Amino acid sequence: MSQINRQIQLVSRPQGEATTDNFKLVEVPVPSQAELADGQVVVRHHFLSLDPYMRGRMNDSRSYAEPQPLNSVMIGGTVGEVVASKHPKFAVGDQVLGMGGWQEYSVVDANVRGAIHKVDTTHIPLSAYLGSVGMPGVTGWYGLVKIINPKEGETVVVSAASGAVGSVVGQLAKARGCRVVGVAGGADKCRYVVEELGFDACVDYKQHNDPKSFYAALKEATPKGIDGYFENVGGMILDAVMLRMNAFGRIAVCGMIAGYDGQSLPLANPAMILVSRLKIEGFIVSEHPEVWPDATKELGGMVASGKMKLRESVADGIASAPEAFLGLLKGKNFGKQLVKLS
Amino acid sequence: MSQINRQIQLVSRPQGEATTDNFKLVEVPVPSQAELADGQVVVRHHFLSLDPYMRGRMNDSRSYAEPQPLNSVMIGGTVGEVVASKHPKFAVGDQVLGMGGWQEYSVVDANVRGAIHKVDTTHIPLSAYLGSVGMPGVTGWYGLVKIINPKEGETVVVSAASGAVGSVVGQLAKARGCRVVGVAGGADKCRYVVEELGFDACVDYKQHNDPKSFYAALKEATPKGIDGYFENVGGMILDAVMLRMNAFGRIAVCGMIAGYDGQSLPLANPAMILVSRLKIEGFIVSEHPEVWPDATKELGGMVASGKMKLRESVADGIASAPEAFLGLLKGKNFGKQLVKLS
Repeated sequence: MSQINRQIQLVSRPQGEATTDNFKLVEVPVPSQAELADGQVVVRHHFLSLDPYMRGRMNDSRSYAEPQPLNSVMIGGTVGEVVASKHPKFAVGDQVLGMGGWQEYSVVDANVRGAIHKVDTTHIPLSAYLGSVGMPGVTGWYGLVKIINPKEGETVVVSAASGAVGSVVGQLAKARGCRVVGVAGGADKCRYVVEELGFDACVDYKQHNDPKSFYAALKEATPKGIDGYFENVGGMILDAVMLRMNAFGRIAVCGMIAGYDGQSLPLANPAMILVSRLKIEGFIVSEHPEVWPDATKELGGMVASGKMKLRESVADGIASAPEAFLGLLKGKNFGKQLVKLS
Repeated sequence: MSQINRQIQLVSRPQGEATTDNFKLVEVPVPSQAELADGQVVVRHHFLSLDPYMRGRMNDSRSYAEPQPLNSVMIGGTVGEVVASKHPKFAVGDQVLGMGGWQEYSVVDANVRGAIHKVDTTHIPLSAYLGSVGMPGVTGWYGLVKIINPKEGETVVVSAASGAVGSVVGQLAKARGCRVVGVAGGADKCRYVVEELGFDACVDYKQHNDPKSFYAALKEATPKGIDGYFENVGGMILDAVMLRMNAFGRIAVCGMIAGYDGQSLPLANPAMILVSRLKIEGFIVSEHPEVWPDATKELGGMVASGKMKLRESVADGIASAPEAFLGLLKGKNFGKQLVKLS
């Protein structure tokens, strides 16, 4: 009797805010070893990663990536173990990282270069390959190191600071001798960012929820202005940061989650780009595969030695993925959002 | 009997739009040779340059430069000839470039490095040192070469295309094998940009004066999208360009003249920075003196050989400077705005 693979498909596109109705749970059989083609591998997923970029894929509009097709499994990063293999380089029991999607099992053509990677869990927990040592970690590394490139003593600000990307950015900047200020929603997250992650300060955008109050709090936290900003959010936070940027400041634009539901999200003062001679650069980490060796070497070393911390929010079971994802978009998660699948 | 130097002083700051009331014509004596201190030189100005950056200096707000002080001569670039000298390197009759301000004569301490420069008018007209071979030309060169850095076959768009900076940007981009599209106000300017300067196309923002119509015209002129944009204006034009930018496009922000009177000038779609992975960089040419030799070598060569054209709008006499300057801010000039002083 074959195993059942439960998966979440995207069945409709959001009109404005995404809802659970956009998703559907579907059951399909898992192929047996005998049913595999040469080169195929079956991976049983232990964790699925939920990330803000997925919201963009749900839309049909022009973006950097193809839209997620309807009536197919939602894309997503996964870690798990090989449970059947017809590929000489992968054996049952191997732990692997891949883009298995929102499902319990995936069937992978391991001949496709980069489709799955074996990972070493001797010093690094398996789930970290979806977090600090995975795509979110490398995203933070690229924006901080390649775009912001901060010098010792400079001030770096990061939004969504308690999240998977933001927490990496801040800890990397601290390791480079910067003053690091986070922006996060709520007293608990701000306390965590300062006390656990070691940021110098954190501005609570829920406490300071109008532009004037937020700007005042940001100003207090950045007495010498801001030299580098890692943008995950957009909107009011970006507007305030623009006014605090020092001459020759750098802004790495990784995400603008505040506009993912299609809200108009203008930038109030683009003239500051000229006034402060700013450099603003948007990037997508998947377009810079050349940095993975350097980035994962630094990140893996920091995780293994305990110098890079990342809290995880873990939802239980594939059926919980849509709710957990919608919560992530509203900032309800605390740290890296995962779904435990086995 | 001493000569009279007529000068324009800034006597009040604009409340919104600048007006002639912000300026005042003042007469002061020109020192005689005997009255000069060691190292001083008296320059009789032939031309004064009027440039958009001057509007920013009239405000009291935070910007990259100190505000122009009240009740003193407006700053500005000048070319002229030495009429008295107590400096061994400058002789009566030498032609010089300097920052003499809005006046007929200036007294310069020639010991201050860079205060005045001798210029060679054998192959290059004196006024060109205020235009294509001067600050506007180097401004265009820096933004195009150092920020946009276009490859052959790419599409480059420049706003204020018939102006001193824009016309240089476009002609340099054509020399690099790009498709070059200007944005200018009015049929005459657009015809000049295409027929005289050799741009491939020009979009008339006065004909297409609403966002939808302007976007449609820009789209038609940029069938392969836009790889590089040189920004002088801001507002509706920048919004439309953002939507036409190709992946990895570069935007050099040189000016945002549309907001100089203090208008709120938001950027409609900053999310395009991420969607198209754009790099946007603001710059001020005076902070990059290291490029002057390379820039003026290329620009001077093109002017001398007739490959770099620049139309001039010449106002007559120092008293006409305020009106000519206010016209420049409204795009009434056609080409480089100068004031002839002798």
